[in-house]
Amino acid sequence: MSRVWNFSAGPAVLPEEVLRQAADEMLDWHGSGMSVMEMSHRGKEFISIIEEAEADLRELLAIPSGYRVLFMQGGAIAENAIIPMNLLGTRRAADYVVTGSWSAKSEKEARKYGEVNIAASSQAGGCTTVPAMAGWKLSPDPAYVFTCTNETIGGVEYPFEPDLAQIGRGDVPVVADMSSNILSRVIDVSRYGLIFGGAQKNIGPAGVTLVVVRDDLIGHAMPHCPTAFDFRIVADNHSMYNTPPTYAIYVAGLVFRWLKRQGGVAAIEARNVAKAKLLYDFLDGSGFYENRVDPACRSRMNVPFFLGDEALNDTFLAEAKAAGLLQLKGHKSVGGMRASIYNAMPIEGVQALVDFLRDFAARKG
Amino acid sequence: MSRVWNFSAGPAVLPEEVLRQAADEMLDWHGSGMSVMEMSHRGKEFISIIEEAEADLRELLAIPSGYRVLFMQGGAIAENAIIPMNLLGTRRAADYVVTGSWSAKSEKEARKYGEVNIAASSQAGGCTTVPAMAGWKLSPDPAYVFTCTNETIGGVEYPFEPDLAQIGRGDVPVVADMSSNILSRVIDVSRYGLIFGGAQKNIGPAGVTLVVVRDDLIGHAMPHCPTAFDFRIVADNHSMYNTPPTYAIYVAGLVFRWLKRQGGVAAIEARNVAKAKLLYDFLDGSGFYENRVDPACRSRMNVPFFLGDEALNDTFLAEAKAAGLLQLKGHKSVGGMRASIYNAMPIEGVQALVDFLRDFAARKG
Repeated sequence: MSRVWNFSAGPAVLPEEVLRQAADEMLDWHGSGMSVMEMSHRGKEFISIIEEAEADLRELLAIPSGYRVLFMQGGAIAENAIIPMNLLGTRRAADYVVTGSWSAKSEKEARKYGEVNIAASSQAGGCTTVPAMAGWKLSPDPAYVFTCTNETIGGVEYPFEPDLAQIGRGDVPVVADMSSNILSRVIDVSRYGLIFGGAQKNIGPAGVTLVVVRDDLIGHAMPHCPTAFDFRIVADNHSMYNTPPTYAIYVAGLVFRWLKRQGGVAAIEARNVAKAKLLYDFLDGSGFYENRVDPACRSRMNVPFFLGDEALNDTFLAEAKAAGLLQLKGHKSVGGMRASIYNAMPIEGVQALVDFLRDFAARKG
Repeated sequence: MSRVWNFSAGPAVLPEEVLRQAADEMLDWHGSGMSVMEMSHRGKEFISIIEEAEADLRELLAIPSGYRVLFMQGGAIAENAIIPMNLLGTRRAADYVVTGSWSAKSEKEARKYGEVNIAASSQAGGCTTVPAMAGWKLSPDPAYVFTCTNETIGGVEYPFEPDLAQIGRGDVPVVADMSSNILSRVIDVSRYGLIFGGAQKNIGPAGVTLVVVRDDLIGHAMPHCPTAFDFRIVADNHSMYNTPPTYAIYVAGLVFRWLKRQGGVAAIEARNVAKAKLLYDFLDGSGFYENRVDPACRSRMNVPFFLGDEALNDTFLAEAKAAGLLQLKGHKSVGGMRASIYNAMPIEGVQALVDFLRDFAARKG
């Protein structure tokens, strides 16, 4: 089979030229006589790979000095525990903004490690929007305010960057789970205390977790925080206290370089805006498909939608697959369909989806 | 450069045919039109990959029913915390046998989670041997006895399988860190309560951690154990509570199949015995090189040695590299040299090393 259009929510499509390069270099990286998988993480070859990956990421996100970049393991779900274990060492409570499945999971996990205050929630309305910051009720002295800037399952994305100074709480660090929208849009890192994300959407293969953390938030781990997940230890050892997931970091580095060749984050954001507009405009005008998210908070990355006749779901998926459009089934907690259109999905893929959607609706709608 | 002889302690050499297959399948796995890196972990393609990997591993190690196989993240160093967090939930103390750097690190980490008793230690003699089991002093009611069956840094390997029934304590589960010798020799899994290992020596790429755990040891996690690392949660979700390191698991599966093609663990053990004998016999008879480990406990996987004249170390490493023999520098805590000769190192590589060693000694010794 030739390559397909892969709309998986993650692990997800990667740039084809990244995959080609990885295949080409598999047995012999840059004349070293070794695969990247076979290299000691302490050898000069791999050190050059991880250092270039970090430098490229810093350039892409314009990460200011005063922030450390950590390559960790366990994905965003492990970070749901690792973050409170690191940040609640000297504080009692943390505040959470709940906008969907992922932030709900995060706040539940945090309760193991301290007091959790729900600063704002859109759960009453089914998590189809992001509560305006003016209404966030912070606790008196939270260690941080937790946000999930893009809810992969619900398809809800923050249309603003949380800036707590606007509500007079600029002293409180914002933690952001950006697993599914990091590197897809320009952000101002200085607004956050900590940004994290599993790699398997916009960064690279599953198995590496990216953490960007401000210096002053490092060094406060709780006594029972595993050493391997103590930000102080990870930072001081340049992400090599334990053996890092070397190959996943290498592929992430290839993705960063690909992104630079695309023109960087601003350029990819413009394409992401165009891709999302193409799909949402079609859905809205179709008279057959429906996206139920607050239009102001629709995700550019994950587009859940429903058919006008849900009895056609299985037929839809079978025909889509036959047309080379894969992994369109919605998350079981939401139902319907979901198209994830991350950085590596070209507009041609979105156009192919729209063409299929139009044809299907014309025949069955 | 052509492929080299890579003696890295880990990440380490992989079978060349595994790397070739991974490269060939990079853009399109089995006609799916996707790279394994791009597949949803919940799709039928990846499910078939992880199920086959587990089935092959069970066959290779003859894992009895009543044991679960978990694919986790964080490496052996994270397990140093994860294991006590899971096994000390209902007990107060655990016993540790210290035979080198890795078991020492493990017992230090465990102290965060409970009382640690040193059942036996070879530290007084510089960790060059394994204390005979008859001398192990277990505490009254330990949750487990921790062992590291091969010390990668010191080059010390258990010449016996711990069988606590022999000292009248068959009720106590043995935990074994087999990171650097798993799948290199036939073991009797039923003697252990839990076996674990980072993948980056004999299994596959760094980033996946293998845990084989007896059913009765699952379900006792401490309250502050991160959900992602709770054996109950990981087992009930078939290692997919969080997104698993899919590509690393895929490559591990290719290594398992390669190992089956080699004839399985007994066949590879015979080769490992031959490789180790070739190298140790040469070192012992050389009159120039020296291995300082108790001959009964010499590792078949990691062979540390010293030159007769340590002033020649840099020259030795430079000439070895020029001859295509890489990563021979000893761990900084030990000094000298170290040749790691895992499953994927063919005897031709060991012979090339011996030839070089002989030639170097003849010229410089």
